[in-house]
Amino acid sequence: MSQATVDACFSPYLYPVYRDDNSVVVIIDILRATSAICTAFEHGVEKIIPVATVEEAREYQAKGYLAAAEREAVPVEGFPFGNSPYSYMGDHIKGQTIVLTTTNGTQAINAAKDAHKVIIGAFTNISAVCEYLVAQDRNVLLLCSGWKNKFNLEDALFAGAVTEQLVKHPEKFKLQDAALALSYLYQQAKEDPLKFLSKASHKERLAKLGLKDDIKYCLQPDQTREIPVLENGALVRMKW
Amino acid sequence: MSQATVDACFSPYLYPVYRDDNSVVVIIDILRATSAICTAFEHGVEKIIPVATVEEAREYQAKGYLAAAEREAVPVEGFPFGNSPYSYMGDHIKGQTIVLTTTNGTQAINAAKDAHKVIIGAFTNISAVCEYLVAQDRNVLLLCSGWKNKFNLEDALFAGAVTEQLVKHPEKFKLQDAALALSYLYQQAKEDPLKFLSKASHKERLAKLGLKDDIKYCLQPDQTREIPVLENGALVRMKW
Repeated sequence: MSQATVDACFSPYLYPVYRDDNSVVVIIDILRATSAICTAFEHGVEKIIPVATVEEAREYQAKGYLAAAEREAVPVEGFPFGNSPYSYMGDHIKGQTIVLTTTNGTQAINAAKDAHKVIIGAFTNISAVCEYLVAQDRNVLLLCSGWKNKFNLEDALFAGAVTEQLVKHPEKFKLQDAALALSYLYQQAKEDPLKFLSKASHKERLAKLGLKDDIKYCLQPDQTREIPVLENGALVRMKW
Repeated sequence: MSQATVDACFSPYLYPVYRDDNSVVVIIDILRATSAICTAFEHGVEKIIPVATVEEAREYQAKGYLAAAEREAVPVEGFPFGNSPYSYMGDHIKGQTIVLTTTNGTQAINAAKDAHKVIIGAFTNISAVCEYLVAQDRNVLLLCSGWKNKFNLEDALFAGAVTEQLVKHPEKFKLQDAALALSYLYQQAKEDPLKFLSKASHKERLAKLGLKDDIKYCLQPDQTREIPVLENGALVRMKW
């Protein structure tokens, strides 16, 4: 194969325009779904079943599954936790199958489910994700979950950080316009990502909820080498 | 009114997510539809009727209208011109009503037609557009036409340039995430916009077609004070 393309889609709503079922799609929801999912695999979760609606999560719960649900940045009533990464550490996670629904991230996973590979990316596993992408001969689509289908800054920041790694291999990758924009954007952000995000709407939303520790955690790179991958409708640990 | 919001939508396909009928929507298609439309008003066109399809343009043509059509960056067969700004200068323009269809720009105009105001923005009229926006107490949505519903770099560049002007009025405007990203992006671009666009896909496409002069023209700011505005389905000269 000649050069693979690197492109970015800033909203699950826009995915049909970017859809390329031969590509590797990286699902991005930095605050906080994909960060939390990576944390869960680092802490030994067996499988995460992403579902689009709270109702589906309740149905699984009624069948005895451990289920988690987040809407509007808080856990949904009746569920033990939402999408804070701190909820995905400890013995209650190990070996478990967890059903998960979130405002944005699980929608993006669902949108891309027919792609060649759907993997979960976050700062928490960024180096592993980039090494995996470089090792493939595949087009890469960075799918930002955004906030209710709108662009958000933290997902773009992460997509820019991945792009920065991929452009180190110009013989392999050609950036499309959205990825070009992200690579420029990342130049502005990399010195101080927290400052870069200081006016980001979802960061403000989480800070108001007292979740500043979650934000800091989600921006710390390389806390795991695990890459969650979608197989038969569930996220499992990638073997690579 | 308290602070107005400034937001950006990177594709007409995504417009339903951003739709706010109380806002002023700035339609952006730098290469080349909105640049050409501003040029036409500077050269005395009376009215431009944007239509979505080539078939509609042909119907108007059959009724005796002057019609222009572009697809895939070239004029459509049977029409005297497409969307090169150089086609919109001279006596054949003055006092005319022109029916226009283009690959991207006229789709964006159509998508936003129910907004409070729909105005046409390009580098060619950027200062007039910014002064107008500052004089309103309205939310601003920068609607990038993109390329076939995908993000493109030149429209983002212009939206960033507008954002840069609006943030000089922090008492009036609060940037949403997409506009924040654009303001960062513009910091990387402003020293040398042509270099910034050197790898942009549509610039490459136009350069291959020998249209480098069009690109240079479309990046030259402030060639007109005219602001085309949508009224009753047609673009006319704004009186303000």
